[in-house]
Amino acid sequence: MSRSNVHSHRVAFSDCDPAQIVFYANYFKWFDTACFEFFWACGVPAWRELTASRGIIGTPLVNAAAKFMNSATYGDMLDIETSIAEWRNKSFVMRHVIRRGDTVLVEGEETRVFAIKDPENPERIKAIPIPADLRASCE
Amino acid sequence: MSRSNVHSHRVAFSDCDPAQIVFYANYFKWFDTACFEFFWACGVPAWRELTASRGIIGTPLVNAAAKFMNSATYGDMLDIETSIAEWRNKSFVMRHVIRRGDTVLVEGEETRVFAIKDPENPERIKAIPIPADLRASCE
Amino acid sequence: MSRSNVHSHRVAFSDCDPAQIVFYANYFKWFDTACFEFFWACGVPAWRELTASRGIIGTPLVNAAAKFMNSATYGDMLDIETSIAEWRNKSFVMRHVIRRGDTVLVEGEETRVFAIKDPENPERIKAIPIPADLRASCE
Amino acid sequence: MSRSNVHSHRVAFSDCDPAQIVFYANYFKWFDTACFEFFWACGVPAWRELTASRGIIGTPLVNAAAKFMNSATYGDMLDIETSIAEWRNKSFVMRHVIRRGDTVLVEGEETRVFAIKDPENPERIKAIPIPADLRASCE
Repeated sequence: MSRSNVHSHRVAFSDCDPAQIVFYANYFKWFDTACFEFFWACGVPAWRELTASRGIIGTPLVNAAAKFMNSATYGDMLDIETSIAEWRNKSFVMRHVIRRGDTVLVEGEETRVFAIKDPENPERIKAIPIPADLRASCE
Repeated sequence: MSRSNVHSHRVAFSDCDPAQIVFYANYFKWFDTACFEFFWACGVPAWRELTASRGIIGTPLVNAAAKFMNSATYGDMLDIETSIAEWRNKSFVMRHVIRRGDTVLVEGEETRVFAIKDPENPERIKAIPIPADLRASCE
Repeated sequence: MSRSNVHSHRVAFSDCDPAQIVFYANYFKWFDTACFEFFWACGVPAWRELTASRGIIGTPLVNAAAKFMNSATYGDMLDIETSIAEWRNKSFVMRHVIRRGDTVLVEGEETRVFAIKDPENPERIKAIPIPADLRASCE
Repeated sequence: MSRSNVHSHRVAFSDCDPAQIVFYANYFKWFDTACFEFFWACGVPAWRELTASRGIIGTPLVNAAAKFMNSATYGDMLDIETSIAEWRNKSFVMRHVIRRGDTVLVEGEETRVFAIKDPENPERIKAIPIPADLRASCE
């Protein structure tokens, strides 16, 4: 059984667009925040500490996808349930379900890697194998 | 042969996160802007005009996905090439390719519908069949 | 003695810029959210309800200012304390103080008006005198 | 006579809020982008280069203020004219005027400092005297 974490967010006026509904890219922003909160809840140190100690700058995306089933508007309270659906050799899949009460609004997946600065080009980044200790913290 | 449109954007400092690279949800924001610019280039009226004349509030998302192949940072000039990959009965698929020069950074797809305010609940929205005239403008 | 409301927000990774600190425009975003939460706590209906019942679309800005005293980074928990510093004939001044624990990070003021769609140009907006009942709810 | 630079931006759908107008914090985001573009036009290296060569992480804000005179909506083309209004010992004042055609929409000022990571606490930042060579580039 894998761990899950719930991050709650009340939709702000500025999260919505002229159609009066949440602007869709914000769901990906909240996926990212929920990912951070998941790691936080698992005891993984903040990225700035991992950058200082091990050069790990975070978990950038390989791909991301979401299915939008119901819209939300400002004032709505959303619960984002996050878990890790799969560990691969160099990547892992985070699964997010966003609900308002019992209604599922959005389901999404992010495939991420652990990354360091590319030693050959410090402006670019480079994936590393999944660090076993960080994975263990999340299981 | 379908139409395509290129929207250019120079990455701002604030588009990037503490890992010094573009925060990934921004790519979806730019997909949305590129979608708007595509319709604009095809002569489709602004949503506020379609809202006033026909109740159409825009083209909300059914699903969205992106593959991230290379990162970008502030100062980079990005070209977002947008086309409609498929027309279905009630939905359509927009395809976006983001390049920096010749390097492909991101590929993505958005499935969208044309929507009106739900007559039974004005806080919610409702898909309508693809309006034939608007489709014709885009072909 | 005027009312005040505290809105809390944990700084997300994506709220920060490549300098590893909160991107400053986000403080204004949070002022706006705190303003919304203040009205919510005072029992003022959501803008969409006031739009439907009285044509009031919200409280757009006349001016805004902030003083940045200390920086914050992701993971920090912020408390935004909001009150109305002054009521004028057509405008009012919201005061916000953002703290991390006992440390004041940001102080700001927003001068706002209550607005309706301009009857002569529905794409533009127009200030109205402060509605007495809404003011009374906030005192 | 001081230099000025004009940065143009077409307002996106997602730049606007449910009141159909630009969400106000975005003007501060565009001030920041215009500031970056101003330095770019003056030949100042990107912050990541100055971070690597001299430890300068950017020009964080001391305070910011804006006056909102007219609203804008999606599709509007904005011109942001930026100049440096004043150089002080440790800070400088950037002045921004945002226009749509001949109509002034927003006027604003940002007081900024040049900053390095605080040597005593790498999670915090610290202002330094204005670097004479960078100032000279902007005059």
